[in-house]
This record gives sequence, structure tokens and C-alpha cells, in this order.
Amino acid sequence: MQALKERILRDGRNLGNGILKVDGFINHQVDPQIMDACGKEFASRFAGCGASRILTAEISGIAPALMTGLYMGLPVVYARKTKPVTMPDTVYLTVAPSHTKGRMVELIVSPEYLPRGEKVLIIDDFLASGSTILGLVRLAQAAGSELVGIGALVEKSFEGGREALAFLGVQIESLACISSMENGEIQFGS
Amino acid sequence: MQALKERILRDGRNLGNGILKVDGFINHQVDPQIMDACGKEFASRFAGCGASRILTAEISGIAPALMTGLYMGLPVVYARKTKPVTMPDTVYLTVAPSHTKGRMVELIVSPEYLPRGEKVLIIDDFLASGSTILGLVRLAQAAGSELVGIGALVEKSFEGGREALAFLGVQIESLACISSMENGEIQFGS
Repeated sequence: MQALKERILRDGRNLGNGILKVDGFINHQVDPQIMDACGKEFASRFAGCGASRILTAEISGIAPALMTGLYMGLPVVYARKTKPVTMPDTVYLTVAPSHTKGRMVELIVSPEYLPRGEKVLIIDDFLASGSTILGLVRLAQAAGSELVGIGALVEKSFEGGREALAFLGVQIESLACISSMENGEIQFGS
Repeated sequence: MQALKERILRDGRNLGNGILKVDGFINHQVDPQIMDACGKEFASRFAGCGASRILTAEISGIAPALMTGLYMGLPVVYARKTKPVTMPDTVYLTVAPSHTKGRMVELIVSPEYLPRGEKVLIIDDFLASGSTILGLVRLAQAAGSELVGIGALVEKSFEGGREALAFLGVQIESLACISSMENGEIQFGS
């Protein structure tokens, strides 16, 4: 998606070690207009996937998932990283390594909002190693849901996430695919 | 806002001790359509406030703030509760008591996204005691911003937040104002 790539080149920062700072429009300050455009694009690409629900992870998956849900007319469930007092005692929980936090984080979903038999579309901000998305996949599987697609705003193809998710056999879409961040640059692949 | 009140009566749960569970459409599962309607309503009520930026707190403030930002054409900044590696070393930080977590949480904003002289509209999911919103106000003041309005999806008027914020002298709007949660009921006030 050209608008997102241009925004990454304009406002993104390559901090080294494969860390892309997009705090100016995705991760700390959010640009509602570009998120709206991304949601519309995901809705178009996943129009035929038959999803009945969108699953994402707090925090930075919420904005793109919400906009996608708006255009697809679907509820959005975000996996929590801590269990609030309003959640029932028995939940679906998995752990996944966090790239930016350097430790394992919990991903928790209440069975109330992921009933058996749902068709789940996963939307997140980044597809890097795929470990967070694989955590969401495990939650969906634990709930007896069928995974129908995976979408990420930004893919870092050099971290191998797409290959790690290939065995799932579902449509995988990213709106901006970065093929290299070497030498302080940001290069897009196909 | 009638649609939000009806949704609270239909899907909200009074868990006792003043805790309202709205995990089915605001806090864990999000209904993009009702959030869109709430964003539109906030944009209408704050049309004349002159805001240049919306400030909220992760996690559950993101959805209503994003939709409000979409209709007002404004960027949305969400205060982080942990400092990610992408944030600069020097930040604005305050602490506020969390009602649902039973402890103090940090609210952190990077000076990059709250430059001096901004006109800040605060949007959050709940206005209860007002302590989280007062934390956001302190961040805005530390940044040299002017507060121009405060909006919350759900107000619990019996917790006194509106009175605690009155000294700020700005427009305060809530879309559903709950006056009592006694005896397991949910009653709306004006």
C-alpha cells in the first residue's frame, strides 16, 4: 500500500537491530486517517475470507484491527496481556516472546468473546518473526476457532515470519513489506 | 447518547463494588460500529473546542479516541504504561491509581508527540474518580499544552470525577452517565 510505505519512509526511524520506530503514526501517536485507509485496504483484501471475528493483541494491534472491523462489520477481540478483574477465572492463555520488551508476555482471551466455531481473521501492526501472531493462532485453536487469514500493517520479511506461518495454509497480507533495514536504510520488497 | 446507554443495559454487567463490566463492546471485545458512533458524537460535541490533538491512555481509551480523531481530523496520542525501547530517554511521566488493577500505574508520553503549545482534548473510556484523567491532565500541563476538553464514554457520577475535574474549567462530556449501581442495577442520570 503506497500511502503506508511513503509514511514509513517519511516518519519511520530505523533504530538499528531491526527495530523500526513508527511511534509517530502507529505505536504511540496514531494517525486515524492512515489507519482508516489501512482498515479499508485489509477489508478489501480479506473480503472473501468469511471471517466472523477479528483477533488482535493489545496494544498496538487495536487501531488497525478496529478500522478493519469497521469496514468488515465484524467485532474485534484484543488479547489482553494482564487479566483484568472483569475477566472470568478460566481463560485461554498463551505466552509469546516480545521483540520490543525482550521478555515473554502473556496473551489472554476470555472464552466469552471467542466462542467455538468462529472464523478468525488476525490483524496486527507488525509481522516480524511471527511469534506474537503464532500466539494468537494458538489462542484461536484452543478456542476451537478456524483461522481464515492473517494481516499486518508492516512486514519485516528478513525476520522470517511469513515462512513461520506458512504451515497454517491461510492468506497472509501485509500492507508494507520491508526487505532490508541494513546500513540505516529502509528498503521495501514485494 | 441513547445507543450507548441501551448497549450498556443489554450487554453491561454490574459486578458490584461499582465495577461495570463492558468487556463485550469496549474493553476486551470492541464493537467498531458503536465506537464509530461514539467518535462521531464526541466530534460533534467538541466541534468548537479548537483541539489540535487528542490525548488518551492505553489500553481501552484507544478505540474511542481513535474514532474521535478520525471525525475531527486530529492525531491521537496514547499515554503508555511502560516505556518501550523506541521512546527517548527523557519523557513526561506521572503516576495514577488504577481502579481495576488496585495499584498505581505509570502514564508516559514522549515529548516528541506532545510539543509545547498544543490544544489537548482528552478522551477516555471511563470517568469515575477522575484519577486517570487527572494524570493525563498533568502530562499535558507538563508539556506546556492547553487543555480544551474532556470526554468519556461512560461516567459513573457517584464516584465524583466530574467534581474533581471542575477546577480545570473546561467542557466535560460523557456519552452515558450512570448515577447508581446499587442493588445490582444500572441507573442513568442526566
